[in-house]
Amino acid sequence: MPSRIDYFDDPQAPPNSMVPSVNVIVSDEKGRILLIRRTDNGNWAVPGGAIDLGESMTQAAVRETFEETGIHCEITGLAGVYTDPKHLIHYTSNDEVRQEFSLVLTARPTGGEPRTSSESSEVCWVEAQGVEGLPMDRSMRMRLEHYLAGGSHPYLG
Amino acid sequence: MPSRIDYFDDPQAPPNSMVPSVNVIVSDEKGRILLIRRTDNGNWAVPGGAIDLGESMTQAAVRETFEETGIHCEITGLAGVYTDPKHLIHYTSNDEVRQEFSLVLTARPTGGEPRTSSESSEVCWVEAQGVEGLPMDRSMRMRLEHYLAGGSHPYLG
Repeated sequence: MPSRIDYFDDPQAPPNSMVPSVNVIVSDEKGRILLIRRTDNGNWAVPGGAIDLGESMTQAAVRETFEETGIHCEITGLAGVYTDPKHLIHYTSNDEVRQEFSLVLTARPTGGEPRTSSESSEVCWVEAQGVEGLPMDRSMRMRLEHYLAGGSHPYLG
Repeated sequence: MPSRIDYFDDPQAPPNSMVPSVNVIVSDEKGRILLIRRTDNGNWAVPGGAIDLGESMTQAAVRETFEETGIHCEITGLAGVYTDPKHLIHYTSNDEVRQEFSLVLTARPTGGEPRTSSESSEVCWVEAQGVEGLPMDRSMRMRLEHYLAGGSHPYLG
């Protein structure tokens, strides 16, 4: 039973919150990307989540990555900022309709072993060419495509 | 009577909110920077403010710059992301203690004429070397110093 539904350009769902969040693209020395399968909607994604009060963006990125994957990482840069008001996330448990606000950071692994969690039913290192075949929300696929296209400046959207 | 007080590393003020905000460094063809004098605390700053529900980061940046300065601008890049949990902003009107969460964008002017507003008692184009002498909050000065140092990657803090 999904508790998270992503909408794009759906006029029936006005946002009622905006929560600063991070996504973390951890890539290893072979160029593989650390992906999880989300337990809330079955889609594949990079690890991430909301930034808690009392922590910085990079602290949140490192914490969420470890919680969801078992991998420790070090932040290496910023791939993009995604703030499109047309991308809304409906949390069915409390009818929160959250407007996307996500900083996508890049990172390299520094230790740990992949393991699942309550938020991730699978955790895998995936080759770049394998990303395309995985079920993924539109916004997550776009973030990974921007990253894999390898621009020299962060995406600002 | 100031309604905004900035704190740094003050253990007596735990945050109770985090609001995604933008700051905009608008620079003209002579390298001068568009600065305002804030009406809420008398300090100098670049224009900016909270991102509203229903608008993107860049839409907020363009809107806030026009509201506070009379200048229309076009976003050209990202100078940095500032999310230090030690920087807290106390709004005395409702006792909100907001943890800093600011995206600092760069921009170029595309039209308009400088004019003041309810949030800005002065609006000026200031040469880079003139920035140092102006009264400014620690965090704003740091943002401008990072920008003027001219790194090729955004600051991530």
